[in-house]
Amino acid sequence: MNIIRPTLLLNEEVCRANIRRMAEKARQLGISFRPHFKTHQSHAVGRWFRAEGVNAITVSSWAMAEYFAADGWNDIAIAFPLNPREHDSINRLAQTITLTLTVSNAEALEQLIPNLHHALRVYIEIDTGYQRTGIAPGNTREIDAILALIRSNEKISFAGFLSHAGHSYKARSKAEILSIHEASKAKAVAVAAHYRADYPSLIVSVGDTPTCSVADDFSGVQEIRPGNFVFYDVTQQAIGSCQEENIAVALACPVVALYPERSEIVVHGGAVHASKDLLKTDMGVMYGRVVRLQDNGWSRSVEGAYVKSLSQEHGIIHATDALLQSVKPGDVLGMLPVHSCLMADAMKAYQTCTGEHLAMMH
Amino acid sequence: MNIIRPTLLLNEEVCRANIRRMAEKARQLGISFRPHFKTHQSHAVGRWFRAEGVNAITVSSWAMAEYFAADGWNDIAIAFPLNPREHDSINRLAQTITLTLTVSNAEALEQLIPNLHHALRVYIEIDTGYQRTGIAPGNTREIDAILALIRSNEKISFAGFLSHAGHSYKARSKAEILSIHEASKAKAVAVAAHYRADYPSLIVSVGDTPTCSVADDFSGVQEIRPGNFVFYDVTQQAIGSCQEENIAVALACPVVALYPERSEIVVHGGAVHASKDLLKTDMGVMYGRVVRLQDNGWSRSVEGAYVKSLSQEHGIIHATDALLQSVKPGDVLGMLPVHSCLMADAMKAYQTCTGEHLAMMH
Repeated sequence: MNIIRPTLLLNEEVCRANIRRMAEKARQLGISFRPHFKTHQSHAVGRWFRAEGVNAITVSSWAMAEYFAADGWNDIAIAFPLNPREHDSINRLAQTITLTLTVSNAEALEQLIPNLHHALRVYIEIDTGYQRTGIAPGNTREIDAILALIRSNEKISFAGFLSHAGHSYKARSKAEILSIHEASKAKAVAVAAHYRADYPSLIVSVGDTPTCSVADDFSGVQEIRPGNFVFYDVTQQAIGSCQEENIAVALACPVVALYPERSEIVVHGGAVHASKDLLKTDMGVMYGRVVRLQDNGWSRSVEGAYVKSLSQEHGIIHATDALLQSVKPGDVLGMLPVHSCLMADAMKAYQTCTGEHLAMMH
Repeated sequence: MNIIRPTLLLNEEVCRANIRRMAEKARQLGISFRPHFKTHQSHAVGRWFRAEGVNAITVSSWAMAEYFAADGWNDIAIAFPLNPREHDSINRLAQTITLTLTVSNAEALEQLIPNLHHALRVYIEIDTGYQRTGIAPGNTREIDAILALIRSNEKISFAGFLSHAGHSYKARSKAEILSIHEASKAKAVAVAAHYRADYPSLIVSVGDTPTCSVADDFSGVQEIRPGNFVFYDVTQQAIGSCQEENIAVALACPVVALYPERSEIVVHGGAVHASKDLLKTDMGVMYGRVVRLQDNGWSRSVEGAYVKSLSQEHGIIHATDALLQSVKPGDVLGMLPVHSCLMADAMKAYQTCTGEHLAMMH
């Protein structure tokens, strides 16, 4: 691999295996698979999903919805609370594809309605414990207000309840993930049960990589929307969602300086490449693990080495003596991401391990 | 201002005043001003510097050097340790502009030399206390090795010693900044004194926004290279480098949900817009301050409100009751950056307060 600058390497084989495993799991469970495309943001990777039979997707912004619609995706859900200011994009997309919005309060939907000219579906977002967005399951007054708005407008149909158990990212074992999954699912399923008599075809849509990777019981759930699993990362490994060999991306970083006296290697690869997301570990704060590049990919992570800090363009690696003795300025090391979604978003392109360039949004 | 999505607002008047103040300070001190353009990464903002008489600049990557060379900048320094793998870019630029590289070890320069075909200048990087990159001032063996390589090649000329007192970012008062400035400057000036007999025209180039904003004594220094001051940010305000009214950028974020029961407002504006850089305060970790948008800019920050967490697209604001009562979904709030360089890099475009779109690199 000819690396000149920080380059986001993508192992296609590992990535396709991640996609196949999750698609197969959904098939076996008999539920819909609507993967979240915010992680990869790439037409090329999207087509690897299509090859596994995926035809409905999730995104987190209008720009992303427009980008994937341009590559032929015609069933797109926006899993982000409705911003009524986006009505032009909403109309443009709703005119041409099956569009599903996420409504997290009646106010936003009320503001949208006068500007809505095309048919769309709506999820009502339920907060099942993450406490980021969504309506508390017991707040039937707000849910009823949204359902009344939906009924008042013939262009809008009710798709079901959406939840995101994002608190699973704070888990540090499979047992913890499963416990969050059960509690979160129970809340979503109970809300759905309350409304199913009036809306027999409503669905329960859940989705986060930890629970979708680890749990097997999705009874009462009709759709999953995980995203990060396409690449996984060091955080998912720490949570217990994956093994290190499932991580499909690594940032190739030219080595620019060595400081053996403080056990540090400095690489070109900083906050604008990796993002400043961090993982707290027993060793302190970490911004990534360190791997050696190989002909068709990269090694297992180097024991004892980790990315200890990042400035705009610099990455500071805490290195072992063995690592320090085996590299010099002009070599290249790899960084496994703490958060692959943010690293991919920062890099805006991939290079596969066979040297192919894959474009991303923007 | 018609805001639909997260939009990086730039107050041209405040920004031009920041540029003018620093340019005037350098003029009065009688030293060269080579501002770092990694913060704004924009041809348009670069031209505001040109209007203040600036004709030499600093950047942190080859991509950035090529971007600014394309807008007529013909004296560019790369203040990042030489990566010899960049020899094609180095030759391309060295052929057409006055190019200055930063060399932080002999090994990298040795690898470059066989591939170098055009004239360039070299700074030797000295570590004056930040402990990120650069040669320890006492390590004359490494400095001598680099100087020997420079003398061995007629294309390379020695420009002087470069240092970056980045540890000033950890200061929390003007007194602390001044103390770091004095210690750091003394080390750089002493190294220069040691070599001045052999290189009478060598310069000492220093640069970081805190010391360049606060210090007045630059004796022995011939060039300053601050960058962040063009926009400043909440961190610089906390350090004591600026006042809040000097902050020239704010991220306009549509409000999508309110949670009065937990004193939170959720906006569209997350890690992919603001970056995950954070500031530790007495109230805990903060990702930005909150302002109200006004016709020609934004208000002072709302007392008691701050950005408490960010996910990929969501920003979670800790809000006061007064703020919660005065906004609703569909409104827009502003976020003052913790780190304006990373927010600008993430946003890739500006909108001035008079509605003009300013493009950035990429």
